Amino acid sequence: MYGATFTAWRAEAAEPWHAYTHHAFVEGLEDGTLPRAAYLSYLVQDYVFLIHFSRAWALAVTKAETVEEMRFATRILDALLNQEIALHVTTCAAEGVDEEALFAAPEAMQNIAYTRYVLDAGHSGDFLDLLAALMPCVMGYGEIGLRLAAAKCDTPYAGWISTYAGADYQQVCLEAGALLDAAILRRLGAAPQASPRWATLSHRFTTATRLEAAFWNMGLAG
Amino acid sequence: MYGATFTAWRAEAAEPWHAYTHHAFVEGLEDGTLPRAAYLSYLVQDYVFLIHFSRAWALAVTKAETVEEMRFATRILDALLNQEIALHVTTCAAEGVDEEALFAAPEAMQNIAYTRYVLDAGHSGDFLDLLAALMPCVMGYGEIGLRLAAAKCDTPYAGWISTYAGADYQQVCLEAGALLDAAILRRLGAAPQASPRWATLSHRFTTATRLEAAFWNMGLAG
Amino acid sequence: MYGATFTAWRAEAAEPWHAYTHHAFVEGLEDGTLPRAAYLSYLVQDYVFLIHFSRAWALAVTKAETVEEMRFATRILDALLNQEIALHVTTCAAEGVDEEALFAAPEAMQNIAYTRYVLDAGHSGDFLDLLAALMPCVMGYGEIGLRLAAAKCDTPYAGWISTYAGADYQQVCLEAGALLDAAILRRLGAAPQASPRWATLSHRFTTATRLEAAFWNMGLAG
Amino acid sequence: MYGATFTAWRAEAAEPWHAYTHHAFVEGLEDGTLPRAAYLSYLVQDYVFLIHFSRAWALAVTKAETVEEMRFATRILDALLNQEIALHVTTCAAEGVDEEALFAAPEAMQNIAYTRYVLDAGHSGDFLDLLAALMPCVMGYGEIGLRLAAAKCDTPYAGWISTYAGADYQQVCLEAGALLDAAILRRLGAAPQASPRWATLSHRFTTATRLEAAFWNMGLAG
Repeated sequence: MYGATFTAWRAEAAEPWHAYTHHAFVEGLEDGTLPRAAYLSYLVQDYVFLIHFSRAWALAVTKAETVEEMRFATRILDALLNQEIALHVTTCAAEGVDEEALFAAPEAMQNIAYTRYVLDAGHSGDFLDLLAALMPCVMGYGEIGLRLAAAKCDTPYAGWISTYAGADYQQVCLEAGALLDAAILRRLGAAPQASPRWATLSHRFTTATRLEAAFWNMGLAG
Repeated sequence: MYGATFTAWRAEAAEPWHAYTHHAFVEGLEDGTLPRAAYLSYLVQDYVFLIHFSRAWALAVTKAETVEEMRFATRILDALLNQEIALHVTTCAAEGVDEEALFAAPEAMQNIAYTRYVLDAGHSGDFLDLLAALMPCVMGYGEIGLRLAAAKCDTPYAGWISTYAGADYQQVCLEAGALLDAAILRRLGAAPQASPRWATLSHRFTTATRLEAAFWNMGLAG
Repeated sequence: MYGATFTAWRAEAAEPWHAYTHHAFVEGLEDGTLPRAAYLSYLVQDYVFLIHFSRAWALAVTKAETVEEMRFATRILDALLNQEIALHVTTCAAEGVDEEALFAAPEAMQNIAYTRYVLDAGHSGDFLDLLAALMPCVMGYGEIGLRLAAAKCDTPYAGWISTYAGADYQQVCLEAGALLDAAILRRLGAAPQASPRWATLSHRFTTATRLEAAFWNMGLAG
Repeated sequence: MYGATFTAWRAEAAEPWHAYTHHAFVEGLEDGTLPRAAYLSYLVQDYVFLIHFSRAWALAVTKAETVEEMRFATRILDALLNQEIALHVTTCAAEGVDEEALFAAPEAMQNIAYTRYVLDAGHSGDFLDLLAALMPCVMGYGEIGLRLAAAKCDTPYAGWISTYAGADYQQVCLEAGALLDAAILRRLGAAPQASPRWATLSHRFTTATRLEAAFWNMGLAG
């Protein structure tokens, strides 16, 4: 769906991927039963998440091997920091929480675990290690968005759903999948699953997927 | 006790510091009521913790500004990787878990959160940011060890207690405290609390202290 | 001119700053006596320089402490990678050298020394260490551009001069100077020269300035 | 000689490897014609080199994937910082230059280029990228030491020669070669030359080899 590598890693992470993409928090977004307070507390944490996720995409720029890889990571960084974050800022501002307060919000442990794991994947490994840890968030939101949009439920969270189901975000997922496939081909060759690194990278993808589910747990707890 | 900077940060983190050093897990070590299974599962996670904590001390070598700072961090790195870890390896080997299995143990989320937070403190900041995140573990274990040794309870965990109450470990705490004071003096001057960085560093110390308490929670849960 | 911190560091680096900004290569740009071959070989190296300089601004995003710092560094990164580099690509394409060839050009030792020094300033220190190493290139080109534009010589390098004398680039210099002043105030307080870090940071600025002069040497050698 | 991977990369870097290992500086060490002043100025730069080379081995600890890799890199770090450096400190102290002065010595550009290139290889890539950049220094000195010892010339630099020809240093080379082979096998599999990464890694080895020759140039210039 979003490329060959993603499809393979997603299959290898089948159970945690299902736990992440069909989490009770997601169901609550779909049918509208998610309490507003839980949604808002999630948005605050997600703002801080996006700050550190932006830092991880910036780290990717420093670890790229081609100018195309650098430009793609820069584009995502810019989109996160200047567009995706704007949704959180606007919604929270309407609730009386300004961006400075968002930036200074105390991070939940699940949030720390996820973002710092991604950053460390980059620092300890190479560009592929970092991409493997970045992909579950990018593609998982795309997949959830599409599924929830297709369900056409009446929910107060339609704005959230349309953001990730929308053409712009889906295009990012498609391009990220293509970037990942090209980066894999460039470094592991045409039969990447034969490389000893495949299992390491797939394990990183699975770990980040588990940390996504833990993030939803935090969101539900409010 | 372990230097002026530590004493000040400890006071500023009073409540989380108490929660960490007087945690139910610690009381269970003291009076022997901690279930053996919880202790062993903690040891396995703590082995993985020490691996990443070693990586953080290695990172400190790369961020030092004097040869003394480099040598001290190298000495701690060597002690962690070749001595402190040996306790875990020996205890777990007696339970049938070899070092390769320890190294490959799945990390609990609390473990990921703590170690990756420390590493990111180093990558995003300077030598002081890293030290501030490293100190709660070093000094807290020293303080707990001394207190539990003084209590002289009859407990199966006397070996754990004597390790951290022992002269070798206490010497490390004293030297780490002196290194921290010298590093602060070198970078922030003689009145470090007047520097805008003081609050940032103290906040890192407090965050790492909270993550220590969360680590004990994980240990208790087994 | 470009802020208080820059003005102070520039004064402390007086002799190497003059050697850099009044280098024979610069005079050759001004009066048109710089051989075309030297200019082209400089452009090729400068393309590779900008790639690694972009990586350093991306690293700055990972080390920022405010969302404003993150956004400014992202804007510079984007400008370098998608606009400033375009000048090099266009000029070199007219000479039959495409971007792939530029990206793969063997790096001169002076180029390696400069860019890797800047990156290591970031990795070993904090945001300020990185900014101190980034500024001589940003502001020096602005200063040279203005002076050469004012000289109004008849030179084939008028395009280069107007790029750096132009309003867009001068605006970047002004904003970079303001960012630096704000970053200093935030971390060192209102009397930064009283901080022990001032000398360290000024030394980094001076070292990067010396590496700029060495880069011109390389350019002259062709 | 020092393992299969080293042997292959050395062959692929044949010309720069010869330029490095048969440099006029090396011949001057062998036959004793190297001026004492050049030797001493080299020792000062080499002290600073070893400081940053130690930082690079510490970085390797943070990027290792097995506890054996971590322990080997820690052992080298300790040997560099506490033993190899001692030779420089002792020799220079006899000339009236103490360790603090060595640590603060202004770095030559060739020195900056080499050490920061190695560190950036580690930050931008993975453990293999870093090893590839570290090996030319480790193994080249071993090879030069052996050849010069076998020549049995009457030279005032016999102490330098016996250091690197000695059993201790040769053992380090053998173990580093074995570590490299194991690290390659673990990540690239049994036919590493079929991996797209082989050429990238070999290129890093060649670049570091060229930077060694430039370092000798600096030494000769005095």
